[in-house]
Amino acid sequence: MKAKISVPGRRVTVALGERSYPIEIGVGTLREAGPAIAERTGARQAVVVTEPGIGRRYAGALLQGLRKAGLRTARIDVPSGEKHKSLREAGRIYEALVGAGADRSTAIVALGGGKIGDLAGFVAATWMRGVPFVQVPTTLLGMVDSGVGGKVAVNLPQGKNLAGAFHQPRLVWIDATTLESLPMRERAAGMAEIVKAGAILDADFFACLERDAVRALALDMDALLPVLERACAIKADVVAKDERETGLRMLLNLGHTLGHAIEALQGYRGMLHGEAVAIGMAWAAQRSEELGLAPRGTAARLRELLARCALPTALPPFPRSAYLAALRVDKKRKNGRIRYVVLRGIGKAETVPLTPAEILPAAALGAPGRAKKRKAARD
Amino acid sequence: MKAKISVPGRRVTVALGERSYPIEIGVGTLREAGPAIAERTGARQAVVVTEPGIGRRYAGALLQGLRKAGLRTARIDVPSGEKHKSLREAGRIYEALVGAGADRSTAIVALGGGKIGDLAGFVAATWMRGVPFVQVPTTLLGMVDSGVGGKVAVNLPQGKNLAGAFHQPRLVWIDATTLESLPMRERAAGMAEIVKAGAILDADFFACLERDAVRALALDMDALLPVLERACAIKADVVAKDERETGLRMLLNLGHTLGHAIEALQGYRGMLHGEAVAIGMAWAAQRSEELGLAPRGTAARLRELLARCALPTALPPFPRSAYLAALRVDKKRKNGRIRYVVLRGIGKAETVPLTPAEILPAAALGAPGRAKKRKAARD
Repeated sequence: MKAKISVPGRRVTVALGERSYPIEIGVGTLREAGPAIAERTGARQAVVVTEPGIGRRYAGALLQGLRKAGLRTARIDVPSGEKHKSLREAGRIYEALVGAGADRSTAIVALGGGKIGDLAGFVAATWMRGVPFVQVPTTLLGMVDSGVGGKVAVNLPQGKNLAGAFHQPRLVWIDATTLESLPMRERAAGMAEIVKAGAILDADFFACLERDAVRALALDMDALLPVLERACAIKADVVAKDERETGLRMLLNLGHTLGHAIEALQGYRGMLHGEAVAIGMAWAAQRSEELGLAPRGTAARLRELLARCALPTALPPFPRSAYLAALRVDKKRKNGRIRYVVLRGIGKAETVPLTPAEILPAAALGAPGRAKKRKAARD
Repeated sequence: MKAKISVPGRRVTVALGERSYPIEIGVGTLREAGPAIAERTGARQAVVVTEPGIGRRYAGALLQGLRKAGLRTARIDVPSGEKHKSLREAGRIYEALVGAGADRSTAIVALGGGKIGDLAGFVAATWMRGVPFVQVPTTLLGMVDSGVGGKVAVNLPQGKNLAGAFHQPRLVWIDATTLESLPMRERAAGMAEIVKAGAILDADFFACLERDAVRALALDMDALLPVLERACAIKADVVAKDERETGLRMLLNLGHTLGHAIEALQGYRGMLHGEAVAIGMAWAAQRSEELGLAPRGTAARLRELLARCALPTALPPFPRSAYLAALRVDKKRKNGRIRYVVLRGIGKAETVPLTPAEILPAAALGAPGRAKKRKAARD
C-alpha cells in the first residue's frame, strides 16, 4: 500500500430514498473504509469475502480498519475464476458464515471484482433473508458497473446470472490505487462498460473518453478520477430512476445480450466479461446502422474507441446455430423476444424486441470484423 | 375432487401498498384458481412446483384451469421430505425452469405444504432476480402461516431457513377441501400455528379455538372457514404492519426458537414443524411464568388446548448442551442474544433478549412435562 496521495476524493450518491447510499471514490483510502462501513451498516461483525490474490494484497488494510472501528471480523476466500460464481460456492460461503458466528447484525463486505461482488452480494441478499452489504471493488468493472446498483447473482450451468436478486449495498468504497495490481487487459475490460455508459446516455462523456480513456487506463489519477466519477454518476442516475430494470436500466445491457452468449459458448473460460461486451456493443451498433436506426459512422466511431482501449470487436467464430441457442436463455427475453439494446447514435439508445434470428441474421455473419481476426494490443 | 360445496368464500387482504394481495379462501375452488392467477400475475406461463403425492391429486385441476385461462403450463415435482428444501433442490428447479423455457413472464405457483411454498418461493425470489409467485397451500400450516407473508427460504445443513428472502406472493389461493387428503397428524401440526396466533395476539380467538378447534380439525367447514379466515387475518395484519420482521412480526416466532432447535437436533426427520413449535410454545409459556412475566395458569391453558389438538408439549430428551449448541445458530440471534418471544398472558406477547442458557436453564430441565412422556391421541 502506498501512502495517501493528495487527490481530492469524490462522492456520488445513488438516490433510492431510505435506501440511498454513497459511492466514495478516493486514492489510497482502503484503510479508511472501516469506520465508514461501521457507520453505514450498524453491524457488529464484518465478514470480508474475497479471492486469495486480492485478499493477500488488500484484505489486511481493510480488516485492520474494520477492527479499529470496533467490529469483529472474518475473511472468507473464494477460489478465483468465474466458474466459482455458483450456487455451490454460495453454499460454501453460508457454511463459513455459520462457522464465523455470523448473525443478522453481520455485514458482508465484497472485496474484489465483479465476480466477488455478485457472489458475495447474492449471499448477503439471502443469508438470513438479507443482511447489510458493502462493495469494495478492486477492478475497474466493479467500480463503475457491477459494484453499483444492487444486481447480484450466481451463474447456473445453463446461463449467466440466472439466479439472483436486487440487493443494494449500503456503501460502495472505491480506492483507485487498487487498480495498480489489475492487469492491463482487465482494466481495458472495465473500460468497455465505461464506454458503454457514454455510448448509451452521454455523448459528451463519450467524447471525453475519446480524449482521456488511454490516460485513465494508465492510471493517471487526474484523468482516471473524473472518469470514475462520471461513469458512476451515470450508473447511479439510471439505477435511481429504474432500480428494478423495467425500463431505462435495460439500456445498460447494450452489448450484453451477445456478450453473455459469447461467454456461455466459451464456457466462461474464454474472454473477460468486458471483452465479450465490447464485441456485443460493436455488433449492436452495426445492427443499429443496418436497421436504419443509427446514422452511418456510429459503429465505426464506437469500434475505434474500443480498439484504442485494446478491446476486441470481432465475433468469435462459433456456428450461428450455437449463438441462437445461447441467446434463447437470455434473461431479457420476455414472451419469446429479447429486448435488444440498439443505438440511435452516440449517446442515445433504446430497446427493440427482436428474435435471436433478427439479432444475428445469417447475412450479417459475413459482415465486417468477423472473418478477419483483429489483433489488439494487450499487455 | 368433490363438487363445489355451497359455503360462501372469504377474502382476506394483505395490505402492502402496491404489493397488496388477496388470500382467497373457498371450498372446492381449485379449478377456479387459473383465471385468478392469470389476472394477478400477468404471466404468460405458469410453472407449478409440487410434490408427487399432492400433484397426483390436485395438479390436474389447477393446470387445467391455468390452461383454460390461456397460460402455457409446466409442472415440476420435488421429492417429498423436508431434506429436499435445500439449495441443491433449488438448483434442480432452476434447471427444470430452463428446460421449460421459463423467462421473466413466467409465474411460479407453489402447490403443496410449507416446504413446497418455501422452496418454490425461494426459486421465485431468485429466478432471473425475481418473478411473480402464487401460493396454493394444501396443508393447514401453509394456509394460515407459511403461505402468507412472503418469507421464503431453503435449509442449510447447519440450520433451518438460513438462506432465504422476503418475496411476497401475488395471490394465496386456499381450497379447504384439499385438507381432506392431509393426515390428521399434519392437520394438528397446522393447528399449532393457529393456536399461536391466538396466544400472542387475540384472546377472543384463543377462546374460540378452545371451543371449535376440534371441529375444525375434523373439517367441519362451518367451523373451519371462520378459523382459517381469522388466522389469516391475524397473520395478514402482522405482515402488513411489519413486513421485514423488525418488530411485531417477531412475535410470530413464539415457540419457534426451541422448535427449530428440536427439528435440527432430530435432523429434520423427527417431529413435524408444528409439533416442534407446540413444544416450543409450551416451553415459552412455562418460562414466561417462571420469569414472572405471565400470570400463573397461562402455560396450563395453552398446554391444554395443544393437547386437545393432539399436539405434544414435552421436550425431547436431548442433552442440554445439544440444545444450547442448536440455539446458537438461531436467525433471531443478534449480537449473541436471541430475541425470545414470551407471553404476558393469553393474547399478549413480547420479545426479551435472552441467551441460550437463559432460555434453557439447567434447573428448568427437570420441569414438568419433560421426564414423563405425555401420550397424545394421534390418528
